[in-house]
Amino acid sequence: MSSTELAPRVAVIGGGQLARMMAQPAVALGVPLRLLAEAEGVSAAQVIPDQQVGDYRDLATLRAITQGCSVVTFDHEHVPTEHLRALAADGVIAHPGPEALVHAQDKIVMREAMARLDAPQPRWAVVASEAEVEAFGLPCVLKVSRGGYDGKGVWMVRTLADAAEPLAAAAAAADRGVRLLAEELVDFRRELSALVARSPSGQAAAYPVVATLQVDGVCREVVAPAPDLDPAAAAAAQQLALRIAGELDVTGILAVELFEAVDAEGRTRILINELAMRPHNTGHWTQDGAVTSQFENHLRAALDLPLGSPEPRARWTVMVNILGGDDPDVGRLYDGYPHALARDPHLRVHLYGKELRPGRKVGHVNVYGDDLDDCLERARHAAAWFRGDLGNDSD
Amino acid sequence: MSSTELAPRVAVIGGGQLARMMAQPAVALGVPLRLLAEAEGVSAAQVIPDQQVGDYRDLATLRAITQGCSVVTFDHEHVPTEHLRALAADGVIAHPGPEALVHAQDKIVMREAMARLDAPQPRWAVVASEAEVEAFGLPCVLKVSRGGYDGKGVWMVRTLADAAEPLAAAAAAADRGVRLLAEELVDFRRELSALVARSPSGQAAAYPVVATLQVDGVCREVVAPAPDLDPAAAAAAQQLALRIAGELDVTGILAVELFEAVDAEGRTRILINELAMRPHNTGHWTQDGAVTSQFENHLRAALDLPLGSPEPRARWTVMVNILGGDDPDVGRLYDGYPHALARDPHLRVHLYGKELRPGRKVGHVNVYGDDLDDCLERARHAAAWFRGDLGNDSD
Repeated sequence: MSSTELAPRVAVIGGGQLARMMAQPAVALGVPLRLLAEAEGVSAAQVIPDQQVGDYRDLATLRAITQGCSVVTFDHEHVPTEHLRALAADGVIAHPGPEALVHAQDKIVMREAMARLDAPQPRWAVVASEAEVEAFGLPCVLKVSRGGYDGKGVWMVRTLADAAEPLAAAAAAADRGVRLLAEELVDFRRELSALVARSPSGQAAAYPVVATLQVDGVCREVVAPAPDLDPAAAAAAQQLALRIAGELDVTGILAVELFEAVDAEGRTRILINELAMRPHNTGHWTQDGAVTSQFENHLRAALDLPLGSPEPRARWTVMVNILGGDDPDVGRLYDGYPHALARDPHLRVHLYGKELRPGRKVGHVNVYGDDLDDCLERARHAAAWFRGDLGNDSD
Repeated sequence: MSSTELAPRVAVIGGGQLARMMAQPAVALGVPLRLLAEAEGVSAAQVIPDQQVGDYRDLATLRAITQGCSVVTFDHEHVPTEHLRALAADGVIAHPGPEALVHAQDKIVMREAMARLDAPQPRWAVVASEAEVEAFGLPCVLKVSRGGYDGKGVWMVRTLADAAEPLAAAAAAADRGVRLLAEELVDFRRELSALVARSPSGQAAAYPVVATLQVDGVCREVVAPAPDLDPAAAAAAQQLALRIAGELDVTGILAVELFEAVDAEGRTRILINELAMRPHNTGHWTQDGAVTSQFENHLRAALDLPLGSPEPRARWTVMVNILGGDDPDVGRLYDGYPHALARDPHLRVHLYGKELRPGRKVGHVNVYGDDLDDCLERARHAAAWFRGDLGNDSD
């Protein structure tokens, strides 16, 4: 960093909506961002002036984009860890660093680490054949260890015949280090998420545990805090996320996606589903519902600045994603504004600068207030309206 | 606007901190901005990718920057109104439009309009000689009709000798349409500000009336809402601002700066001091203290979208400006973060990407909560810390 610069520059790898939403607190903090975008005009490239288009799998590209930056952080978890080690040797530190990030890249490495930490998780095994799947027991869930997201690379397996496709997919990608993970099918009551921010100095902040509704592996709704969650279970989930962040030396945001199950004695059990090491869809509510948003705390953590309060600002905050629907004639999201904003002057809308396509996350709405049912109705109505899908909105 | 664009593009003239802070809600709304900056790297140019450097007094430059934009709005009030009429003839509508904006450009035009509206204001007159100043009566305030800001172009006149400088200044600028305005010196209790947003369709939203502390003509602190303000006076101030916005056809944010005085019978009187037609320093508290910030409502109004709620989110919100102090060795504002953020995890900081220079507005802090004294102490401490001036902080 040149001595004439006003603040350290942060390199952000990946031009999706998470990088876009980091740009807002960067404006307030006076911190310049430099973006490596995967293509011209992608979501974050629309709002960050200092940018370059390139391939995050290419070390020379990463070296060029991070030159003059103090730290590098991410919109996604796919940057090769060996490149991050090379950057560190150049003096550009990644947050999260490669030793932490590998746990968000590889689900088997993550399961092994959770086992070492004696953290509660579903029964699991690495499998490579029908016989091993059969030995693990059916029904089960099969997941490729690397590269899956939003429900892709995940199979529900009820019969051995169902295992053929995942076994073939993993075998085909074996040369890229992909293996197949079998997990117990958890009979969960609902899904939760415990989000924490952690700085390189070790300061950490835990957001309230939220309830998330996933449909086909894609996050649809978040309620903060999780309604009717046993306070002891909520505290345990926060402590678990803080412990994982500390033990794995995570820097920035860590999202621990959890299953909430009920054991034979009727007690709440929480089991780790996935880890994510970046601002997360289950934390978008913090933009309007918390003192400090996950995006601001991610940047503060990357810069080793003191973290902001994760306290909620309202009794309830509901986040509902806007997903592209099946109707190709909906038109522009922008054209949904006159109704949506007039109907609800308290509605908070966040659009990502993306065209509507079926199933694509193109934005979200946040609604906060004292009455959960009212918040849910307003947020669901607005999201359904934007996606042109009001008639089918029966969530 | 091309049919492939996701949303109408908004041209913003002027690259200061007000344009910079419009960029944050533009990200959320999915609305692209195009910036005309006065120089490379100015405050807003750091955060708006689609930009050009040029002179806002040049019509060809304005035509180029607004091409493909639906509307044009402003970081400042200095764009010549004849240029805005020429742009309108091209189909690019300015918000606020030239017929409204002239009232923020010319204090005599404003006084004449307020008189027509029978709006409460100090006694005033146009003066051009010592004799006319003497006839108006001393003491008084003299102001150049155009081009003054932040206390510049304003003189406190107690003796006729004090009038020489303002008379000469106005005479020297007469060829640019500058005249001299004499105003009664109001014995005010404090200054207030009534901020409203108004859309081209005529929808309007009034923020709570705030108290502002000005030092040497520069805003230092804002308390929202104004403490101990007579509710009838508060309602009258809001209604006055709404009436002015409607009568002058203001679009976007209108700030009506007011004197609060007490008449001989002990009743609160409010008198109009100044009008501003853009997001205003007395509205920065809305970024963290209101449901919808003034910057978002300014953009919504420019686009004729329904306005967001102006309701406060906390009992009290305090804004304190960070001004460059006299110590040249303070260093970077950024270096104030470790203490300021650790001391107060609820502190909201907004920096403008500017170097510290004596008296320059380089940022502000917002603090909200239930206890006004606590909010004041925390916000003042943080602002003083950033400006390297803790020992002198006796506000």
